[in-house]
Amino acid sequence: MFLDEAAEGQLPESPVVRSSRLLQLGPCDGGTYAVHDSCTPSLSSGGESSPSSLTGHNWEMNYQEAAIYLQEGENNDKFFTHPKNAKALAAYLFAHNHLFYLMELSAALLLLLLSLCEAPAVPALRLGIYVHATLELFALMVVVFELCMKLRWLGLHTFIRHRRTMVKTSVLVVQFVEAIVVLVRQTSHVRVTRALRCIFLVDCRYCGGVRRNLRQIFQSLPPFMDILSLLLFFMIIFAILGFYLFSPNPSDPYFSTLENSIVSLFVLLTTANFPDVMMPSYSRNPWSCVFFIVYLSIELYFIMNLLLAVVFDTFNDIEKHKFKSLLLHKRTAIQHAYRLLIRQRGPAGISYRQFEGLMRFYKPRMSAGERYLTFKALNQSNSLLLSLKDFQDIYEVAALKWKAKRNREHWFDELPRTAFLIFKDLVVAVNGVWILVETFMLKGGNFFSKHVPWSYLVFLTIYGVELFLKVAGLGPVKYLSSGWNLFDFSVTAFAFLGLLALAFNMEPFYFIVVLRPLQLLRLFKLKKRYRNVLDTMFELLPRMASLGLTLLIFYYSFAIVGMEFFCGILYPNCCNTSTVADAYRWLSHTVDNRTVVEEGYYYLNNFDNILNSFVTLFELTVVNNWYIIMEGVTSQTSHWSRLYFMTFYIVTMVVMTIIVAFILEAFVFRMNYSRKNRDSEVDGGITLEKEISKDELIAVLKLYREAWGAASDIAQLLKILSQMERYEQNTLVFLGRRSRTKSDLSLKMYQEEIQEWYAEHARKQEEQQRQLSGRVVPTAQQPPGGRQRSQTIT
Amino acid sequence: MFLDEAAEGQLPESPVVRSSRLLQLGPCDGGTYAVHDSCTPSLSSGGESSPSSLTGHNWEMNYQEAAIYLQEGENNDKFFTHPKNAKALAAYLFAHNHLFYLMELSAALLLLLLSLCEAPAVPALRLGIYVHATLELFALMVVVFELCMKLRWLGLHTFIRHRRTMVKTSVLVVQFVEAIVVLVRQTSHVRVTRALRCIFLVDCRYCGGVRRNLRQIFQSLPPFMDILSLLLFFMIIFAILGFYLFSPNPSDPYFSTLENSIVSLFVLLTTANFPDVMMPSYSRNPWSCVFFIVYLSIELYFIMNLLLAVVFDTFNDIEKHKFKSLLLHKRTAIQHAYRLLIRQRGPAGISYRQFEGLMRFYKPRMSAGERYLTFKALNQSNSLLLSLKDFQDIYEVAALKWKAKRNREHWFDELPRTAFLIFKDLVVAVNGVWILVETFMLKGGNFFSKHVPWSYLVFLTIYGVELFLKVAGLGPVKYLSSGWNLFDFSVTAFAFLGLLALAFNMEPFYFIVVLRPLQLLRLFKLKKRYRNVLDTMFELLPRMASLGLTLLIFYYSFAIVGMEFFCGILYPNCCNTSTVADAYRWLSHTVDNRTVVEEGYYYLNNFDNILNSFVTLFELTVVNNWYIIMEGVTSQTSHWSRLYFMTFYIVTMVVMTIIVAFILEAFVFRMNYSRKNRDSEVDGGITLEKEISKDELIAVLKLYREAWGAASDIAQLLKILSQMERYEQNTLVFLGRRSRTKSDLSLKMYQEEIQEWYAEHARKQEEQQRQLSGRVVPTAQQPPGGRQRSQTIT
Repeated sequence: MFLDEAAEGQLPESPVVRSSRLLQLGPCDGGTYAVHDSCTPSLSSGGESSPSSLTGHNWEMNYQEAAIYLQEGENNDKFFTHPKNAKALAAYLFAHNHLFYLMELSAALLLLLLSLCEAPAVPALRLGIYVHATLELFALMVVVFELCMKLRWLGLHTFIRHRRTMVKTSVLVVQFVEAIVVLVRQTSHVRVTRALRCIFLVDCRYCGGVRRNLRQIFQSLPPFMDILSLLLFFMIIFAILGFYLFSPNPSDPYFSTLENSIVSLFVLLTTANFPDVMMPSYSRNPWSCVFFIVYLSIELYFIMNLLLAVVFDTFNDIEKHKFKSLLLHKRTAIQHAYRLLIRQRGPAGISYRQFEGLMRFYKPRMSAGERYLTFKALNQSNSLLLSLKDFQDIYEVAALKWKAKRNREHWFDELPRTAFLIFKDLVVAVNGVWILVETFMLKGGNFFSKHVPWSYLVFLTIYGVELFLKVAGLGPVKYLSSGWNLFDFSVTAFAFLGLLALAFNMEPFYFIVVLRPLQLLRLFKLKKRYRNVLDTMFELLPRMASLGLTLLIFYYSFAIVGMEFFCGILYPNCCNTSTVADAYRWLSHTVDNRTVVEEGYYYLNNFDNILNSFVTLFELTVVNNWYIIMEGVTSQTSHWSRLYFMTFYIVTMVVMTIIVAFILEAFVFRMNYSRKNRDSEVDGGITLEKEISKDELIAVLKLYREAWGAASDIAQLLKILSQMERYEQNTLVFLGRRSRTKSDLSLKMYQEEIQEWYAEHARKQEEQQRQLSGRVVPTAQQPPGGRQRSQTIT
Repeated sequence: MFLDEAAEGQLPESPVVRSSRLLQLGPCDGGTYAVHDSCTPSLSSGGESSPSSLTGHNWEMNYQEAAIYLQEGENNDKFFTHPKNAKALAAYLFAHNHLFYLMELSAALLLLLLSLCEAPAVPALRLGIYVHATLELFALMVVVFELCMKLRWLGLHTFIRHRRTMVKTSVLVVQFVEAIVVLVRQTSHVRVTRALRCIFLVDCRYCGGVRRNLRQIFQSLPPFMDILSLLLFFMIIFAILGFYLFSPNPSDPYFSTLENSIVSLFVLLTTANFPDVMMPSYSRNPWSCVFFIVYLSIELYFIMNLLLAVVFDTFNDIEKHKFKSLLLHKRTAIQHAYRLLIRQRGPAGISYRQFEGLMRFYKPRMSAGERYLTFKALNQSNSLLLSLKDFQDIYEVAALKWKAKRNREHWFDELPRTAFLIFKDLVVAVNGVWILVETFMLKGGNFFSKHVPWSYLVFLTIYGVELFLKVAGLGPVKYLSSGWNLFDFSVTAFAFLGLLALAFNMEPFYFIVVLRPLQLLRLFKLKKRYRNVLDTMFELLPRMASLGLTLLIFYYSFAIVGMEFFCGILYPNCCNTSTVADAYRWLSHTVDNRTVVEEGYYYLNNFDNILNSFVTLFELTVVNNWYIIMEGVTSQTSHWSRLYFMTFYIVTMVVMTIIVAFILEAFVFRMNYSRKNRDSEVDGGITLEKEISKDELIAVLKLYREAWGAASDIAQLLKILSQMERYEQNTLVFLGRRSRTKSDLSLKMYQEEIQEWYAEHARKQEEQQRQLSGRVVPTAQQPPGGRQRSQTIT
């Protein structure tokens, strides 16, 4: 380290010299090796803490371990699953790449998709028992292989401690046994356990969002359950009341027994039988409507909303708590990584050499130039070493995509923009009205004549020209990087395909013509509020998708159970003895020499295969008329089947309430945010500018040539250099850019609290360390800790 | 004033002397008279600013005006309606007492209730045209009288500026003309304008909550409308798509024309026609379900929730804004009142004499002792005069109810409480299960035998004994002051009445027996969370009631319109040509010698009189199967009738969304509050303790005897004195108590912001005053204002 200090004294502080010094720092401390604090579990601290070769195999190990720590921080993997030795590391690395993840995912998907082909199969996809049982065994073998790798990496002890893995293992065993039984008996038995197959999907690395949702659902359950029991309690009270009041009326089938009374009021909770359930008593005594109005007011309009309020509140709380714990987890990961990257002797900090080593493992796709820019961006104190404080922004900065900033403007920036925009909006609006009027003029029948309407051609031409101009101006890549342009492009492309379909009269593609009204979606761009709503929607899309997937997983389980119990029991005229016979009726009779078919259609809502089951379950989710399906099934089986439907209703209610709470939370959060930061830029993500001078670049280049030889790195740096020379610039400004995430919003919203969390976290860590290092602190000394905390806050 | 200063120098600071000095302060400054700042509009500043008699008629005027200011602050009346002279004051006082308010309310109610008896009247209440038109004219005359008083009080200029009053006047004119036309023609014409009658109710003093709700609804409208148009826009796009896709199917009536398509999708938005609308196309092509799933996912599960989010957010914002403006309005009112109560010369502050004068007008029901306690509670600096800062808490302190604190405990405090409570809960739980099982055993028919079940007697005896013990222990007044005890009492009383009805076999009272299961509501007290929920519910009840009333007002308007247009068109078998014929069918045919009646019952959901209309509108609010009513009416009238139903749906959607947002906001706010103040007391309202010594009391008494002679005041003070003497105490501690309101919660939640608001407010006022006093401040001097503001914040 004396070398640096000497250099600091001698050299003037020109940026060139500084950068070259910065880069010399790496190679010249090859002699040191890492000695780790005893409290950090470390790969290299195990056997190889002896001084090794100059280039340091040790350092390589440290880089890798630090990169693993950073990844663990990012993925919220607990540190007790950190690989503890070289063998575990090999397994860890094997199990942590996209190939492995894809295998995991496809095995899980294969298992789920098998239910399309098994016993009550979709007709077109039916497979022999041999075939699908073998496929299942194959997929299960893949899962076994995954678990073995995990066992190798975690060690038996941690493996058993990891609850999710244990559940997965036991489900695996059950599935295995059952698949073999199927193969041996050559017939499918009642396999309700197939409903558990979703656990393989939930456990996939790519389904982290689903796991988080499930956790959130389970965490919201206790208060939810409290209010739910309130709801059910009132239901029972009213059921007893209703039974007393209305059962003397023989024409009222809804309250004839207490069970009927309870079922009627449960269905009434969903409003699905509303005026009907009231009508028999209402026709007898008009005042009986009071009973129903009071019931609905209390249950539907009060307690149901209370349920939403409680879930919303819990949800908010959990979101904040989750954000906090993830933030602190990341911080801990950064500290672990930092401790692996600093040298024991000399001033603390990460030199560029160490940083470069880390980044090669952490972000292998990053180019040399980007790595250097990341280092520069982190290095806020502009010194030679990254301090822990600098390093703490690593996640935010490493996510930036760097691009050379061009001063050249687009040629069309000169055009009168507003006039152009107004013209565009006008065209879209006219097109919208046009389509509406045109459709209104049609009187049904066959619209797909060979004649292409001229209006279609005119508007398509205008859109085509606009698209062409934009692509020409921005270049295709930049054009497609904007969501709105992508949207424009796809709508125009669809319209063009529709034109082709019309022109060549291709019957199977007629649906594209039908998508024409989608062009109206362009109208959305007209108003700022809608753009904001849609932007928020796009931001939410990943979360929404994972919530949708969570719902689908519940659907899958219920579909399997439904298929096992209710398959094939619903068919035309199946339920003629029940109260909902009309809905299942299928009559064909001749009136005036024409065959008239009276269809109730509800027999289509059955559990005959998994696709039908999904549609039926969606209908149950929408709730309207769900009791027709329930009563149909009940009349064909026993009245215990109602439990299935009621359970499903409650489960979807939970998930739906969570979805509503999520949408509410996300939008309210964002609106609050934009209210708080009304002045700052509305969107456009997060950007950062960094300048690199030519001399700096040459120094970096020289260094790469001398020490770490990856040819691609050098080539990339040379390219930047040649670019500089071509434009005869001495410096090149780079722009780092990434889209804003929820986490960024949270960071800004909780600004003040975050400092408190950090301080508290630091205090806890310190205490832990003190206890670990054996110096037990007497309780009397705690006040200084408290004082120190308050100092950190200020 | 020199007298006080002299006293301060001479006398030692014993409490006795201090209090006597405090009281001497009043009478000895009778010689001063009020000189008001020119900027406060004041009754007395008009003509009587000359020095007058010692007892000061002037002061009396000031007291009254200050009290009016305080009332205006409390009721959020704008200051431009402040009475400006003695004539206006007389009218103001006449129009501001409960008798006048009651007259206002009953006239409005009479007008609304008239629709029970007018043209399509409820059969039992039908009145002759002469009778109801005369009644209407009478009620309208009362309204005219009210408006005249208001005109007198406000003056013509302010009267015209006051928008609500102007709307009311014009509606009044229309109603008057129409009522006279009815009387002359002796027949009711189409009087849709009756829908406007609600405005008389809305304008009542007692309906302030409703006005506030309406304002809030109108303020939430703009963002609501934005999202609503998004919703309708998507609906239209999908309607066009659906028309293209499904109209080729001749068996699909839902999409046969674009109009049908739009109506079907509008109804689908409410899910009321859900699986049915999909079935014809689904039976043709299973993949058509994708259209409906996508539509419902976007519209129902996304945009509808977005609507809620936007309304919730706007609502929150408005609530906070409203709280802020009310707070500042109150502050201004206090300042106005303060300025009227201080003497121009000498140190600023309100002496007890002035305070007493104010309170006699502001809270005429307060006793002398309470007035003194209020003064003491306000006087935080414990000096002789109330400063403005002290006086600013007047609203909070004046609302306290004072009671002498007794140290005596209740005799049953000694009992082992927990054992007792557990026994009680056990009894309630056993009773609950008992009722459930007993009801389950019944198989319908006649339960009201003469035989009284013994279990009923046992449980009733236990509850009766508990009630008796509690009343004996606490005394009836204190017992009934707790909501939970009141609840217990009424449930037990009902049960007892039911027993009597059973014992004496009184047929008409059998409904009381039926209320027996309500005893199960006692189960609620078992869990803390439910108690909290119910407590919050009770706190919200006034607001909920006013929201319900707001909804009823919308109902009323729609009911009138519905009656005028759709009266008498729905009857059994009315709609045999429509698609919903079944629902209106009434068939009586003979099967196996028994008459079997097939009833569709929906003809009961009509607009034949106002009560029926209300029930029908409630059914439309619940939404399920609402299209049956719509289609029935449409088939009998024109398809424009759909507009009525769709408008009603959208209006109730707005109101319902606001109600949901309100419940959400209230509960989330309260939960946040209790999370923030986890340590502080959970409930029990706000309390304050003040001690009065005997000497102090004697001094006050002497003063009342000397100067202001109300006999009742003196008697009350003597009573307190005798109480002290009886228990041989030298001091008596009084406990001031009031229940906590939303405003208290808000005060605590926005603590920090409130200081900013105040500072900003003060700055604005100062600026205004400076501008008024003619000293125009150059713009360059504004920075000091800013500095001053920041100083006030810290």
